[in-house]
Amino acid sequence: MEGPVLPTPTALSPHRPPRNLDLRVTGGLFGRWLDVNGTTSIPLALHHLEESGALANLRAAAGRASGSFQGPPYADSDVHKMLESAAWQLQHSPDPALTTFLTETAGLLADAQQSDGYLDSRYQLTNPADRYTRLVDSHEHYCAGHLFQAAVAAQRATGYEELTQVARRLADHLCAVFLDDEGPGLDGHPQVETALVELYRATGAERYLVLAARMVERRGRGLVGPHKHGVRHRIDHLPVREAPTVTGHVVRALYLEAGAVDVAVETGDKELLAASAARWTDMVASRTALTGGLGSRQVGEVFGERYELPPDLAYNETCASAASMQWAWRLLLATGEGRYADLLERTLYNAFAAARSADGRTYYKGNPLQRRPDHADAVGDPRWRDEWFYSACCPPSVTRLMASLPHYAATTTDDALFLHLYAPMRLACDLGAGRVAVRVETEYPWRGSVRVTVEDAPGSEWTLALRVPPWSGRTLVDGRPVTPDTQGRVMLRRRWGAGDSVVLDLDMTPRRTAAHPRIDALRGSVAVERGPLVYCFEQADQPCVDELALPADAELRVREVPDLPGVGRTVQIGTDALTVGAPHPDGLPYLDPRTPRTRRPASATAVPYFQWDNRGDGAMRVWVPLDLPLDQHP
Amino acid sequence: MEGPVLPTPTALSPHRPPRNLDLRVTGGLFGRWLDVNGTTSIPLALHHLEESGALANLRAAAGRASGSFQGPPYADSDVHKMLESAAWQLQHSPDPALTTFLTETAGLLADAQQSDGYLDSRYQLTNPADRYTRLVDSHEHYCAGHLFQAAVAAQRATGYEELTQVARRLADHLCAVFLDDEGPGLDGHPQVETALVELYRATGAERYLVLAARMVERRGRGLVGPHKHGVRHRIDHLPVREAPTVTGHVVRALYLEAGAVDVAVETGDKELLAASAARWTDMVASRTALTGGLGSRQVGEVFGERYELPPDLAYNETCASAASMQWAWRLLLATGEGRYADLLERTLYNAFAAARSADGRTYYKGNPLQRRPDHADAVGDPRWRDEWFYSACCPPSVTRLMASLPHYAATTTDDALFLHLYAPMRLACDLGAGRVAVRVETEYPWRGSVRVTVEDAPGSEWTLALRVPPWSGRTLVDGRPVTPDTQGRVMLRRRWGAGDSVVLDLDMTPRRTAAHPRIDALRGSVAVERGPLVYCFEQADQPCVDELALPADAELRVREVPDLPGVGRTVQIGTDALTVGAPHPDGLPYLDPRTPRTRRPASATAVPYFQWDNRGDGAMRVWVPLDLPLDQHP
Repeated sequence: MEGPVLPTPTALSPHRPPRNLDLRVTGGLFGRWLDVNGTTSIPLALHHLEESGALANLRAAAGRASGSFQGPPYADSDVHKMLESAAWQLQHSPDPALTTFLTETAGLLADAQQSDGYLDSRYQLTNPADRYTRLVDSHEHYCAGHLFQAAVAAQRATGYEELTQVARRLADHLCAVFLDDEGPGLDGHPQVETALVELYRATGAERYLVLAARMVERRGRGLVGPHKHGVRHRIDHLPVREAPTVTGHVVRALYLEAGAVDVAVETGDKELLAASAARWTDMVASRTALTGGLGSRQVGEVFGERYELPPDLAYNETCASAASMQWAWRLLLATGEGRYADLLERTLYNAFAAARSADGRTYYKGNPLQRRPDHADAVGDPRWRDEWFYSACCPPSVTRLMASLPHYAATTTDDALFLHLYAPMRLACDLGAGRVAVRVETEYPWRGSVRVTVEDAPGSEWTLALRVPPWSGRTLVDGRPVTPDTQGRVMLRRRWGAGDSVVLDLDMTPRRTAAHPRIDALRGSVAVERGPLVYCFEQADQPCVDELALPADAELRVREVPDLPGVGRTVQIGTDALTVGAPHPDGLPYLDPRTPRTRRPASATAVPYFQWDNRGDGAMRVWVPLDLPLDQHP
Repeated sequence: MEGPVLPTPTALSPHRPPRNLDLRVTGGLFGRWLDVNGTTSIPLALHHLEESGALANLRAAAGRASGSFQGPPYADSDVHKMLESAAWQLQHSPDPALTTFLTETAGLLADAQQSDGYLDSRYQLTNPADRYTRLVDSHEHYCAGHLFQAAVAAQRATGYEELTQVARRLADHLCAVFLDDEGPGLDGHPQVETALVELYRATGAERYLVLAARMVERRGRGLVGPHKHGVRHRIDHLPVREAPTVTGHVVRALYLEAGAVDVAVETGDKELLAASAARWTDMVASRTALTGGLGSRQVGEVFGERYELPPDLAYNETCASAASMQWAWRLLLATGEGRYADLLERTLYNAFAAARSADGRTYYKGNPLQRRPDHADAVGDPRWRDEWFYSACCPPSVTRLMASLPHYAATTTDDALFLHLYAPMRLACDLGAGRVAVRVETEYPWRGSVRVTVEDAPGSEWTLALRVPPWSGRTLVDGRPVTPDTQGRVMLRRRWGAGDSVVLDLDMTPRRTAAHPRIDALRGSVAVERGPLVYCFEQADQPCVDELALPADAELRVREVPDLPGVGRTVQIGTDALTVGAPHPDGLPYLDPRTPRTRRPASATAVPYFQWDNRGDGAMRVWVPLDLPLDQHP
């Protein structure tokens, strides 16, 4: 049972996805997400592939129907991403409709593909002679990359190889055109790099790796061509092994990083890997929202300046969350460092999971940390979810990652099984010493207790490694306090026997979090977190979200709710708060700093951010003013 | 000597521009701005009209040259706005080159104009059959409006009427096409409404007023047509007399308001006037930057939500500042209320004046209140000035308003002369009682003393009314404390004789200003102001702008600087500050609120915001963290 990202045996990759994996999620939040994905989100997305014309484009290109091209230039990628979604989902929940979609669409793509391997319905239907003349905007490589990823997913998840044949013909065509091209041959939207490496891994065709490596190497030399937002927007301002920081269009930047890491590990290029890792460290330190969201500016969908992290205006695109998890996962495999799993988990449970409504039907493209009461009166990025979009990149990014989610739970080294994400599941795989099987029982992220029971084990010693997130203040293993190692793990090396079990207790005490003082937009504010979950205050739970303030010493009370209407299982956090106001000055909203504030006691209730906007379109905020002497502030 | 906005005798307008005005600015900051406008800014802009192809477009339309259309759809308006600039500038400083530009371009426009009066080089050169089919985007009425304003300016400023003839032919054509049209006949960019009323005032042709009134009345009924940003962006969501708040594209919204007020006063429509005034009050209370800047979002160049006022990400377009001053001036004439002059002055000295560099050569389109050290690394609205732009609306908005600036200094009622802006000048005009002449001597805004000497007066009583801005805490007249009336004025009713003088002393004590607690982006921060000037801290004066904090009780020390290199005359404010930091956490920039901060003493120097970015491209901030117990905060 294979998943995304399978480094070859010679790759520079101390961690690996478990070999001969058998993994079943058996319930909990992951189980719910996977079920909703299969029963609601994917079928609805397939409906929108029809509605939007994305499938009709391919039928026209295949000569099966007439019609002109519909949708954005990259409409093909919506189809490819849903193929990938369907493939991974089939690992979790067999569904004849998904199998039919997969095989029928593979046939359609084969028919649409030109004899030289080219496949892009937009150019085929509009201006076939102009292929590759506008790569700065055309997304031709980007669409190809998503097709490669779909093919790899179908092969790994279901053994189905017809899509791989289409992908290979297209990849061979790309190699013929671009392998030796030193001229303008770079897509304005990176993505194909990581996909080519995965296709190399799935097929053994080394030229795909060589093309990916060359594309990574050529980038940053101005070859993409001019663009109204400048070369920075297209991540073409500095060579990938030199750029000190992430910049430009967030999703483009992050997909490129994933490709750079894939190339680095497969070619043993430690310098390239180190450059990517350094940018990751810088990005996390100065450009990442508390939810893991990335991209502070809606204009151009870009990273902002260092410490520019506005909770209201940030874009935090859903695709960026997914891309960030893909990058972090590759760095985790390439280094074994726990901090990558920490960010992956934070992003998953917050920025990423919030994108989709609880019922699995609707999506945010942007994921702000604040919504004001009058948000609908303003013009700009909408503060509500939709089923689909003209530029529909985000919904399929959710469905494909949700469908492959179990694969992000564990890695292995020769004699260790590392658990990174905790969910109820059964997992079996091969270690150097032999086959191991474990059962994980937990109500994480609602409760902090995780029981791992060994169901099968070789006779020799091996290590069960349990990740301890940095927020867990007092962590217990079998009731005894433990100190994780520098990588944030508890390493349990034993001669495990069937039936042995161990209980990890993570510290789920709710906590207040402040922002570094350089983050201007969050000055004097505080957020509430519990476990991996960032919390938010919604108008559904209190009338005056925009007047709330939290005293520094207020007790944070945890309340388990088995089924909050519209939301499902949750844990609320209640606290004694205040509403704080000031008289509105006559005229401008600026006043003498000594103007006294009015304070009135209030109670406040927070819910996990990922569950927001399932109970009406009122105000929401993650960051709330802190009501305490500033000398106790950061 | 006539200026912009001359209500007809029957207009609902308690205040009027002074009759038979003779006004000479005799020095000071206004004198410098006017001089720079004439010697540098306008000649450079005329050069760019050639460089950009804006004049070439008209030559091609006139059949004097060949060539295809260049620039944005509204390139004609750049020419029209420079004609208006030249006309007003000629009142201040006669210049044969400007006169030549005015007359030659008027001839060019007359030649380019079609026989039916239509004049828009873009459609004439590209798709003449499609005129008026895409008004949502085409800017045809917008360009016409700027032509009308140029013609009115030329006629009033210099008596030159050839341009008025061109304008009348175009306006008559608009009346023929749109007067009785109840269908889609509204420009996506309001502007022509106020211009038509001014052309009515200048020509007496009542149909122009009728057309303006109908355009105002038709708006808000969805007639503009669909647009990707929605009807709100085109201010077409609610009828003008019903909309409770400003929304959408800021410049469009403000130009429409100016037109609505013009229509209201000329038709005696008190309901329409009250609706506009109510929106103004709401806009000032919740959507206006401390500098007077308007427009919180770069996406769509729009207003944001209530209290969404980010200092770093705000757009605060230069054209919006100019448009805000035009709206406020019309409301001042229509009501006599001093608060409109207060905002006009705040906008003039801060958001508006900051747009142009001290040397008069370069401009900001967006005017943020903060620039970070690494601003150049990010993608987005640039944080530096340019000589010109592809979409060059802003530079001519500066030159035309700067050229007509003296006209915003004073208004009259039957027997009172109101001084609203203080600058060294001589002013003579007719009151009901007879002709009055005054000399104003002041070093405002650097010093708060204003001496007004009567040089000529009728024998009877009349009132000299002096505006007292709301920030003036202790105001003296001839050394004695005075309390302004509820409209913020000192009314000095006397039988004035030649040689009589009065000295107004405004309180120029530097002051700290905080933001209303609902403004999230400014929480825990403080700004420094003095007189009408907002101050800022620049990297040119201190190394660590982004680590500065101001103690609540630090003394603010005023230092006059006769000639700061690159800037000119200024008044700096020095204070004892701190640099405040916190250890950067390992990983994300979020930490326990109890993490102690490090504080180091530092000295800090602030300069007027309007003078920023004349000494290098370092960091700048208006709002600085306040280092004091939060219970003394708003």
